[in-house]
Amino acid sequence: MIRFYNAKIAQFSEQKPFIVEGELWTENERIRYVGPSGKQITPSFSREIDCGGNLLLPGFKNAHAHTGMTFLRSHADELPLQHWLFDQVIPYENLLTENDIYTLVKLGILEYLSSGITSAMDMYYFAEAAAQASVDCGFRMVISCGGSPLDRAVRQYDYFKHYHPLISYRLGVHSEYTEKREDLEAMASFAKARKEPFCLHLHETEKEVLDCVSRTGMRPLELLDRAGAFSFGGTGYHLIHLNDSDYDILKNRHVYAVTCPSSNLKLSSGICPVSSLLRKEIPVAIGTDGPASNNCLDMFREMFLVSGLQRLTCGADACGAEDILTMACSTGAQAMYLDQCDDLIAGNLADIIMIDLSKPNMQPENDILRNVVFSGSKDNVCLTMIGGKILYENGSYLIHDDPDRICRDAGAIIRRMENTLAKRPG
Amino acid sequence: MIRFYNAKIAQFSEQKPFIVEGELWTENERIRYVGPSGKQITPSFSREIDCGGNLLLPGFKNAHAHTGMTFLRSHADELPLQHWLFDQVIPYENLLTENDIYTLVKLGILEYLSSGITSAMDMYYFAEAAAQASVDCGFRMVISCGGSPLDRAVRQYDYFKHYHPLISYRLGVHSEYTEKREDLEAMASFAKARKEPFCLHLHETEKEVLDCVSRTGMRPLELLDRAGAFSFGGTGYHLIHLNDSDYDILKNRHVYAVTCPSSNLKLSSGICPVSSLLRKEIPVAIGTDGPASNNCLDMFREMFLVSGLQRLTCGADACGAEDILTMACSTGAQAMYLDQCDDLIAGNLADIIMIDLSKPNMQPENDILRNVVFSGSKDNVCLTMIGGKILYENGSYLIHDDPDRICRDAGAIIRRMENTLAKRPG
Repeated sequence: MIRFYNAKIAQFSEQKPFIVEGELWTENERIRYVGPSGKQITPSFSREIDCGGNLLLPGFKNAHAHTGMTFLRSHADELPLQHWLFDQVIPYENLLTENDIYTLVKLGILEYLSSGITSAMDMYYFAEAAAQASVDCGFRMVISCGGSPLDRAVRQYDYFKHYHPLISYRLGVHSEYTEKREDLEAMASFAKARKEPFCLHLHETEKEVLDCVSRTGMRPLELLDRAGAFSFGGTGYHLIHLNDSDYDILKNRHVYAVTCPSSNLKLSSGICPVSSLLRKEIPVAIGTDGPASNNCLDMFREMFLVSGLQRLTCGADACGAEDILTMACSTGAQAMYLDQCDDLIAGNLADIIMIDLSKPNMQPENDILRNVVFSGSKDNVCLTMIGGKILYENGSYLIHDDPDRICRDAGAIIRRMENTLAKRPG
Repeated sequence: MIRFYNAKIAQFSEQKPFIVEGELWTENERIRYVGPSGKQITPSFSREIDCGGNLLLPGFKNAHAHTGMTFLRSHADELPLQHWLFDQVIPYENLLTENDIYTLVKLGILEYLSSGITSAMDMYYFAEAAAQASVDCGFRMVISCGGSPLDRAVRQYDYFKHYHPLISYRLGVHSEYTEKREDLEAMASFAKARKEPFCLHLHETEKEVLDCVSRTGMRPLELLDRAGAFSFGGTGYHLIHLNDSDYDILKNRHVYAVTCPSSNLKLSSGICPVSSLLRKEIPVAIGTDGPASNNCLDMFREMFLVSGLQRLTCGADACGAEDILTMACSTGAQAMYLDQCDDLIAGNLADIIMIDLSKPNMQPENDILRNVVFSGSKDNVCLTMIGGKILYENGSYLIHDDPDRICRDAGAIIRRMENTLAKRPG
């Protein structure tokens, strides 16, 4: 058992997050006690951590990522989308191996831990390697199905069912535009038959929506809804270009929205209408998207941006800090269909981060939660715990691997690819 | 003398920044040598720092700030502008003392140092106290005149002329809308007589521009230009709402633009047309604005936002990382009219930061400068040197004061104000 004492503890069980002062105890992978310091019979702890008045939060949930794309970080940023995708992304992705993904996902996890991200919903190649990298680091990962063929999705669905407590699997596809209509309908039927939610990129660009309309006469949300994809809910990544009937489908089918503001700016996709979604009671989570399009995996940047972009478009009082923090810490867990890690309460999983409030960017403590959202940075993350295990503390990693070696190996992967491609006849 | 070796050193003397590998030596407040390691006669150094392949940059220049507003950080964020300003800002500002500003600016400087900011152009109350706080911390500060009465501006202008090598003073006003026409013209004439540039908030909101037109028949830029304010150049903070004739004045009068994207988002002011300014060869620098409207003093957030907002509005290939880094490190110095701290070359002032490239958010090293701009965070700043003195290193402050005491004192200031205001009859 680990005891955190002298702590401020954020909780999310009411309309707005609030702070209780006291202690938090963990036992194995779960939270055992949250409450005031006092005269309880004190168990014997393996470690007692004086938080010095610092803040404990449920870890940030990165509700949409392609974690393994670390190898393409800053590889080609100033190119138009088509040129970037076809000349700089796909030829490199074609050279990826399962071993590569194992290393590249570990590199992403190092960055997650330093930024207070305790779980991610990931979609990329070699899902099995990504899951193994997560387990080996102690990281909680939700594998989001990349699409057809159906038989592979079924195999993965069965494979991950009892894989490891840190790993879960969500059905879906990459996007409407990457699937043949019959494959999309087969995938949707399978999700419905298994009573599973359906997760995919959705309404990210205007072109995506208009192309679908011209091909099918329907917008992607309507097409998927008619195919029964959202019979048991779902999660849509990006959701920027929405009309009234789109909102109705999201609301009626209990589909979560995931906004990825850095990526949407950088790729010039637009601004997710977060305030409108929240007003219509459609829950919104936050994602970083992949490190080739962001280029970092940092929830602090995303939190500020979600609020800033809503204020730009809806006025200076839109999307307050409490709403943003709820999205990042709590709604994210729900959008990822993760149980019991959306709040710091007894019985929940011990996915916890500690925020150093003594640094100058957190001072004075006029409003601690606003300070975190509007002024915080990964520099303030002094501890990251997942499933009761401390994996990052005061800038050091406590994982069963050498971070420097992971970085070196990731560099070698992209160099190998560059050499391979350079040797090919132009 | 201090020797940095085994370093990557960014230089800005050509169209785009580039990196040289080798050594940088400082002597007193200046850079003595930049170049390859080799067989030079090696002077005796007081300290030799193995950079381990990390990156040296000219420190970031925060070209617009109200540093002393740290006390109002997160004090009232979710209020409409008028309510925020008149109920939550001005009543508190009325209670500020010179001693308060001394402490509050020091708190801001702590944050600057941790974020790699080595100089700031500051406008706020009690400029003398702000300057003294800067000198006592070893921080380079440009005091930007807050406006009339002219006799106070003249006094400050003379006072700061030979105050301290770390302090300079720039004439100007807060903004067109805070000055009577005759005061504005008197200030402009004084700047012209002294052959000084003129610095102020300019075209931040549409309301500011339209109000000026309805009062005077001219837009603020035209009004100021006709008054001769920009006879010797100048710097405009924000510059969001611009038409063709505004661009012409900026270009012809050599007025620098300072964009403050976090503040502009958070206060719903709009997006500075950075790409258009650059295309018209109007140089652009970057500022954080004050911590009551941002709420942090972090150049990494601003750098990503400048690029992201241009990509949102102008397409995915607008405003590359090299442009952004040039603005933050180099053009900023010019916009603040600071000499010899815009590049890491022999003879320049030793305002230098070291960026830790070994952290996972900087890996792999596909493009180091893009990594800094798109993926960097203050967590990567491992050393900040100003005028040859190391003031921040590996998370510790090397200033002649206790950072914890500064934080405590800043908290006591805002609590004292709250108590004072609570006792007043409503």
